[in-house]
Amino acid sequence: MSTKNIFYAQSGGVTAVINATACGLIEAARQHPDKFGKVLVGKNGIIGALNEQIIDTSHESDADIAKLRHTPAGAFGSCRHKLPDPQKDMAPYKKLIEVFKKYNIGYFFYNGGGDSQDTSHKISQVSKQLGYDLVCIGLPKTIDNDLPVTDTCPGFGSVAKYVAVSIREAGLDVLSMAESSTKVFVMEVMGRHTGWIAAAGGLAAESSQQAPHIILFPEVPFDQEKFLAKVKHSVEKYNHCAIVVSEGLKDKNNNLLQKSANKDSFGHAQLGGIGPLIANMVTDNLGYKNHWAVCDYLQRAARHIASKTDVEQSYMLGKIAIKAALDGLDNVMLTIKRESSEPYKWSIGNVNLAEVANVEKNLPKEFISLDGFHITDKCRDYLLPLIQGEDYPPYKNGLPDYVMLKNILMSI
Amino acid sequence: MSTKNIFYAQSGGVTAVINATACGLIEAARQHPDKFGKVLVGKNGIIGALNEQIIDTSHESDADIAKLRHTPAGAFGSCRHKLPDPQKDMAPYKKLIEVFKKYNIGYFFYNGGGDSQDTSHKISQVSKQLGYDLVCIGLPKTIDNDLPVTDTCPGFGSVAKYVAVSIREAGLDVLSMAESSTKVFVMEVMGRHTGWIAAAGGLAAESSQQAPHIILFPEVPFDQEKFLAKVKHSVEKYNHCAIVVSEGLKDKNNNLLQKSANKDSFGHAQLGGIGPLIANMVTDNLGYKNHWAVCDYLQRAARHIASKTDVEQSYMLGKIAIKAALDGLDNVMLTIKRESSEPYKWSIGNVNLAEVANVEKNLPKEFISLDGFHITDKCRDYLLPLIQGEDYPPYKNGLPDYVMLKNILMSI
Repeated sequence: MSTKNIFYAQSGGVTAVINATACGLIEAARQHPDKFGKVLVGKNGIIGALNEQIIDTSHESDADIAKLRHTPAGAFGSCRHKLPDPQKDMAPYKKLIEVFKKYNIGYFFYNGGGDSQDTSHKISQVSKQLGYDLVCIGLPKTIDNDLPVTDTCPGFGSVAKYVAVSIREAGLDVLSMAESSTKVFVMEVMGRHTGWIAAAGGLAAESSQQAPHIILFPEVPFDQEKFLAKVKHSVEKYNHCAIVVSEGLKDKNNNLLQKSANKDSFGHAQLGGIGPLIANMVTDNLGYKNHWAVCDYLQRAARHIASKTDVEQSYMLGKIAIKAALDGLDNVMLTIKRESSEPYKWSIGNVNLAEVANVEKNLPKEFISLDGFHITDKCRDYLLPLIQGEDYPPYKNGLPDYVMLKNILMSI
Repeated sequence: MSTKNIFYAQSGGVTAVINATACGLIEAARQHPDKFGKVLVGKNGIIGALNEQIIDTSHESDADIAKLRHTPAGAFGSCRHKLPDPQKDMAPYKKLIEVFKKYNIGYFFYNGGGDSQDTSHKISQVSKQLGYDLVCIGLPKTIDNDLPVTDTCPGFGSVAKYVAVSIREAGLDVLSMAESSTKVFVMEVMGRHTGWIAAAGGLAAESSQQAPHIILFPEVPFDQEKFLAKVKHSVEKYNHCAIVVSEGLKDKNNNLLQKSANKDSFGHAQLGGIGPLIANMVTDNLGYKNHWAVCDYLQRAARHIASKTDVEQSYMLGKIAIKAALDGLDNVMLTIKRESSEPYKWSIGNVNLAEVANVEKNLPKEFISLDGFHITDKCRDYLLPLIQGEDYPPYKNGLPDYVMLKNILMSI
C-alpha cells in the first residue's frame, strides 16, 4: 500500500506560535518518508480543502520550514469558517472526504480552538460513517486559554507574557507622569468571554503598589461604583492607577459593556473598544487625566516577546502529533499536561475529541481575588510557569526575520 | 572652593531610554568626585526644584544606577509643567535660583523635548541676569523626533523599532485572517504634529505587498476619497490592508480629525482615538471587516524591544554631558551628529539653546512618497540606522527586571 498524505490546517484567530506547531509537525513527518507521503496544507484553513486550494509543503526547504518556529501568525492562512451540523447538511463533509480521497489523504491534523476541535470531531465521525479511513487529530491553539482538559493552550503563554511585560512598562510610564499629568492608564486586552489574558497582566504586580492595580474580568460583573472607588483609592495611595480590562467585560445582566456591530461567521460578536469607554468613565467621574491603549492583534502576533515555554510546547505538539499518528491514536486532541508547578514540568497527553468540542473553560473563582479586581496567589502559581523564558527571533536590518513561504498549490 | 552639586531633571513624556541618559550622567559624575559634588535630581522634574523635593542619588548603589540603562520611563518622575515667560513673571525663576543656591547647585542638566529646551534657555538667561553662576546643558529626549539640529532624538529610535516590529507582526496576522475575516488593520501611533513615528512603521514594508500598505501622516492633509481608493486597491491586490495612522492626522483645513477634550499644561491637545475612527470609516464605506490597535504608552515604554543604537546614544549623551561641563560648555543642547549613513557613524555635538527652543522639525517632503501614503527610499535611509540592534533587558521570573530606585529626598 502506498503511503498516505497528511492534511494539516490552521484555524481561527492566529497566534505568535501556531507556526511552531506546523514546524514541528512538518519536520517530524519528513523524518518518516516510509510512513507518510506529503504534508499538504489547506490554504486559509479548511476553506482550502473545500475549494481544493491545497498547499504542497514539499516545495519548501528544510531551512524555511525551520524558520516557521520563530514566525508569528498563520503561514498558510487561517479562516473563520464554521461547518454546518452534518445531520442537517452533509454536503461540505462529503466534499471534504471526496477531496481527501482525491489527494490520497489519510491523516487530518486540525490546529485550532474550541470550534475547530468540534469540526475535527464531526469530520472524524462523518469519515467513519462514510467508510473512509482517516486519522483525525486535533492540535490545540488559542490565545484565550479556554479549552478544557489541556492545562494550557499553545499561544496563550506568549500573549500572557506580552500583556504582563506591556502593563509593567506602561505602569512605570504612568507613574513617571502622574504628578502633573496622566494618573490613570487603561489597557484593553483580548480573551473573549474568559479572563485568562487579563489575569496574566496581574503577574506584573509583584506588590500592591505595582501595575496593574486593577484587573477587570469578564467573570466578574462590572460594578461602576465599586470600580471608581477602587481607582480613587489607588490614585490616593500610589498617585496613579494602571488598569487591565478584558474586551469581554459584562454588566450585571450579562450584557457586554461594549461591542461592535460586527459578528464573525460563528455568530460571535467582534469585541473591542471597552478600553476608551472605561478610561473616559474614570475621567468623567473622578477628573483624573487618562491614557488608554488597545492591544488587539499586536498582543497575539508579538512573536518578538514570545514565551520560550509556549514556543517549546507548541513545537513539541507538532512533533508529537506525528508520533501519535504512528502510534495509532485517532479522534483525539493532544493536550499539555502539567506534571508539577515547581519546578515546572509538563508532558503531552491526549483526550477524546468529544470531550473538548464546544466546552469553554472560564477563569476559576479561586483565581480571582475576593474584591474581584486582581488575581490570587493560586492564579499566579498557575500562570507564572507559562511565561518563562524568552525566545527571540533572529533580526535582519533591525527587524525580525520572519519567513514567507512559497505556498505552491497542488495541481491534479 | 567646594565642588558644586549637579541638578538633573527629566521632563515631558518619558521614553524607553531616558533613564539610560540619567545612568550615563550619574556614572560619569561619580568618576569625578574632585570636580562634582552630589548628583541631585528633581522629583517629578522641575516641579521637584520648585517644591524642594530633591532626590539625593548618592543613596543609590552603583549597581542600581547601572540598571537605569535598561529601565524604561522616568525613574525620578517627570512632569508637564511650563514655566511662564520671565518677562511677565520672574517669581518661579527666582525661586529656582534660590533653591539652586541653597543646595549648592552649579550645573543644571535638563533632559527633555522642545518645551524643556526652551525652559533651559530661559533659566540660563535668568541665572546670568541674577548673577548666579550656573552651567546649563540641555539633553534632548523625545519620541516625536521633532527637535531641530540634532540628527535624531533619543527615545525615537526605540519607538521606531517598536512600531516597525509591531506592524510587521500584525500585518502577518491580518494576512492570515483576510480570506474569511479581517481584511483591514489600523494601528494608531503617537508623534503629535509630526509623522516621524508613523514613518518608522514604513520600514516594515520591504516590498509593496508587505505591511504597512498605507501610512497616514500629519504632514499630508487627509483626503477620504483618495484614502478609501487606496485601501480598496490594496485589498484587491494583496487581499488585505495594514494601515499606520498618526494621532496628529489633520484635514484640509488643518484641523485634527480626532482629539479629546483634554489639554496638557502647555495647551497641547491630548491626542488619541483616530485609529478606531479610520477603521470604522473603512468598514462603513467599503464593508471590509476591520481590527484596530492604539499603541499609546506601550510604544514609548517598550524597553523590551528598544533599539540598541538608541540606547547607546542616550547613554553616551549622559556621559558626554559631564564631559561638556568639564570642558566649560554652557547654554547648549547636546546633539546627535550623523557622520555617515552607510556605514552608520555618529558622534555627539552641541548647539546653542537659543537655536532649538520652540522649533518643531516636521517630516521633510522628500521623505513622503508622491501619493502621500508611504515613505521614500531617502526616508528609509535616514530611519534604518536608528533601529539597528537589540538591547534586551535582563529577565527575572519571565518579566523584565526593571529597577525601582530609593529616591530619598534631601533634607536641609
